[in-house]
Amino acid sequence: MNKKEKIQAEQNVCPERRTEMMKKVGVAILGVGVVGGGTFKTLTEHREFYKKTQNVDIVVESVLDRDHERAKSIGVPAEVLASSIQEVVANPNVDIVIETIGGCGVAKDFILAALQEGKTVVTANKELICKYSHELERVAKRNGCGLYYEASCVGGVPIIRTLLDGVQANHITEMMGIINGTTNYILTKMAQENADYASALKEAQRLGYAEFNPTNDVDGYDAMYKLSILSSMAFHTKVPYGKIMREGISQVDSRDIAFGKQLGYTLKLLAIGKSGEDGIEARVHPTFIPNAHPLASVNDAYNAVYLRGDAVDDIMLYGRGAGSLPTASAVVSDVIYAATHSEIKYSTFKNTATAEKGVKFISDFTSAYYIRLSVEDEAGVLAKITGIFAKCGISIVEVAQKSKSEAGEDTRIPLIIITHKTTENSVKSAVAKINQSGITQVKAVIRVEE
Amino acid sequence: MNKKEKIQAEQNVCPERRTEMMKKVGVAILGVGVVGGGTFKTLTEHREFYKKTQNVDIVVESVLDRDHERAKSIGVPAEVLASSIQEVVANPNVDIVIETIGGCGVAKDFILAALQEGKTVVTANKELICKYSHELERVAKRNGCGLYYEASCVGGVPIIRTLLDGVQANHITEMMGIINGTTNYILTKMAQENADYASALKEAQRLGYAEFNPTNDVDGYDAMYKLSILSSMAFHTKVPYGKIMREGISQVDSRDIAFGKQLGYTLKLLAIGKSGEDGIEARVHPTFIPNAHPLASVNDAYNAVYLRGDAVDDIMLYGRGAGSLPTASAVVSDVIYAATHSEIKYSTFKNTATAEKGVKFISDFTSAYYIRLSVEDEAGVLAKITGIFAKCGISIVEVAQKSKSEAGEDTRIPLIIITHKTTENSVKSAVAKINQSGITQVKAVIRVEE
Repeated sequence: MNKKEKIQAEQNVCPERRTEMMKKVGVAILGVGVVGGGTFKTLTEHREFYKKTQNVDIVVESVLDRDHERAKSIGVPAEVLASSIQEVVANPNVDIVIETIGGCGVAKDFILAALQEGKTVVTANKELICKYSHELERVAKRNGCGLYYEASCVGGVPIIRTLLDGVQANHITEMMGIINGTTNYILTKMAQENADYASALKEAQRLGYAEFNPTNDVDGYDAMYKLSILSSMAFHTKVPYGKIMREGISQVDSRDIAFGKQLGYTLKLLAIGKSGEDGIEARVHPTFIPNAHPLASVNDAYNAVYLRGDAVDDIMLYGRGAGSLPTASAVVSDVIYAATHSEIKYSTFKNTATAEKGVKFISDFTSAYYIRLSVEDEAGVLAKITGIFAKCGISIVEVAQKSKSEAGEDTRIPLIIITHKTTENSVKSAVAKINQSGITQVKAVIRVEE
Repeated sequence: MNKKEKIQAEQNVCPERRTEMMKKVGVAILGVGVVGGGTFKTLTEHREFYKKTQNVDIVVESVLDRDHERAKSIGVPAEVLASSIQEVVANPNVDIVIETIGGCGVAKDFILAALQEGKTVVTANKELICKYSHELERVAKRNGCGLYYEASCVGGVPIIRTLLDGVQANHITEMMGIINGTTNYILTKMAQENADYASALKEAQRLGYAEFNPTNDVDGYDAMYKLSILSSMAFHTKVPYGKIMREGISQVDSRDIAFGKQLGYTLKLLAIGKSGEDGIEARVHPTFIPNAHPLASVNDAYNAVYLRGDAVDDIMLYGRGAGSLPTASAVVSDVIYAATHSEIKYSTFKNTATAEKGVKFISDFTSAYYIRLSVEDEAGVLAKITGIFAKCGISIVEVAQKSKSEAGEDTRIPLIIITHKTTENSVKSAVAKINQSGITQVKAVIRVEE
């Protein structure tokens, strides 16, 4: 049959026959905790809806979880509970394996086992994809199956789909993201309620936004993994997490948030990636952005990614970066995509363990800076400090002197300097010179993006 | 060859052979004005980039434009200039036809001619897709080719891709969009500079944001076409434009923008679609939203679409809704998608000319309201007015009395009433009763969304 005849034949079948032609896809879920549980719920409650709107019947054929009682409590039927990964991947009815365990331990072994049996994998595991996508993708390709990970970054926001199929016509030159909900919640609290870091963290822990050991979030590891994945896709070259500068929020002083606000800035933990002729820079750190910037009004546990492309100019995607159902939305979106598309779109870059040869990463990047010092209220101090900046080749946009009461200090007053764009190394050098000068100590250095 | 052998064979080919395997795709561009010109520029300047990142070689094989000089001035080589649509569709090297002419005249004939020859079509034409997608899609299906129209809505923002492949796991219950840049520019000017409508329109015309005859934008037709397309996709059922309530911005009084601001609201021309158990509502009208709503800070000619899904909760896409290169980004995104995917995803609804049988459209929708009256500063007036509201079953959240100076009136003062959620018909009835009462006249009725 040629193409035209085939289409004709399809159009002539009776309605019953057409229903038979609906694709049936079996899935397994590994781990039914927060995200896996939400995925089970979404898939089962929406089964008829997907049959109607996507022409695909997605059936949960297998669930693997150490805790059978937990699985049963969310409605998993006893007959689909598997007792080992071998049982899951040997099941001929399972076409797609969903991994929602997390971490780089059994999750990795299970995914490899599934890929080796020719099962397409959908995962929400950012750390694993960041660290081992080259290995997993190689095995996936070798076995002719797909590897999807929309849910690994920014929860329900379809940022990976957008990079692959929405803005792929562009050279992406810049990406700035609020991609960690915990830290955004803490910084929002600090800004809105003038809370200090410790009490905002405590509140975040009480509400379940932060873990008991918050390091992964507050020290920027989570954002770093996601930035590695997203900037690799955006810039079409592997950006290993080892090349990402990382600074968390645990040293953020609420006074700087307040002073920044007076100067027209909002403080966010930004994941920043830039790609230009000189190379690529990738960094995660607390950043001041102008209050009018679209990212400045992204508050609480919300996430957003702002992109700049050479055709589309600037666009932003905003939504919930975590949570059971929002993340399940991304998992199931990948399942439907895998079930309804023949072509498997792997990463659009050479997926290597380390950076590709010839790709340059810039560590001495350029930025504007907010610098706070604590100075004696004496004549000549400002001249000495600005002299040091001048010697380091840094030009100053604005100097703001605050009152003692605002700083809660006794004899010293806070002095804030906003610089023009300069290099990271110049600022480091100026800060070292000031600290060694005996005049004063630098209390805070915060990078500023426009 | 079975699947595994085929993969093995592909992996064993030498690099030269692999380059040969790159897909070559020929495109034709119909109309090289603002969007078509941007598309030509993007495709030609990015040809090597797409070969590298998308493994597809996209070649502009044919350009049709009445004005050959205009085409040549943007770099179209003389040899690809076609003199008729017949010549374009008869060209065996043309796989995809891009329509960037606009309107429902020749654009429709040309698209039909291309589809009938089995060419996939990519179009930026919102009015045509809104009015004739059922007919075009039928012809596309019959001929086994694709019909793509990302660029018809919200410029470079991949909202259609997101609805099809990013949030398709969700029942979408709500959509609110700022999807017309001209009116958003005018309303932003009115709000920020306290300008009146006429002068803000003039400024928009001077800057090229508004046409000499601005009706299509300011009276909400453009937003209505887009809302019809987007809400049909979101709700998986045809929402014909005839079912959309439409009210433009030409009657907006800058005093209401100022009064709203004092009450914590921002005025936007919103395209609203809601889908629930009672049916579907779709409407375009000036709307107050709380200042903290993510849509409230979408200013100037920027666009944004805010969606609510049952799993993903709320997400928003933001970016440039018009312009040569941003719209070209969407056109080329569709071209790459069509070139790299076998499956053609038509609309996820039964694409009919009118609404499907059994689908209910709600005209007497529910909303909160801002109502401004102009009253004599006399005892008893407020009691009479609130009495009428009570009689119509409308409960009031807030009453604000403004000073005469704010209204620029002589003996009367502005009285603003914010209602709880009530029905459109109740408000119409209350307004009629007030206007007939002899007490006063209603000066403004603006719907409020939370």
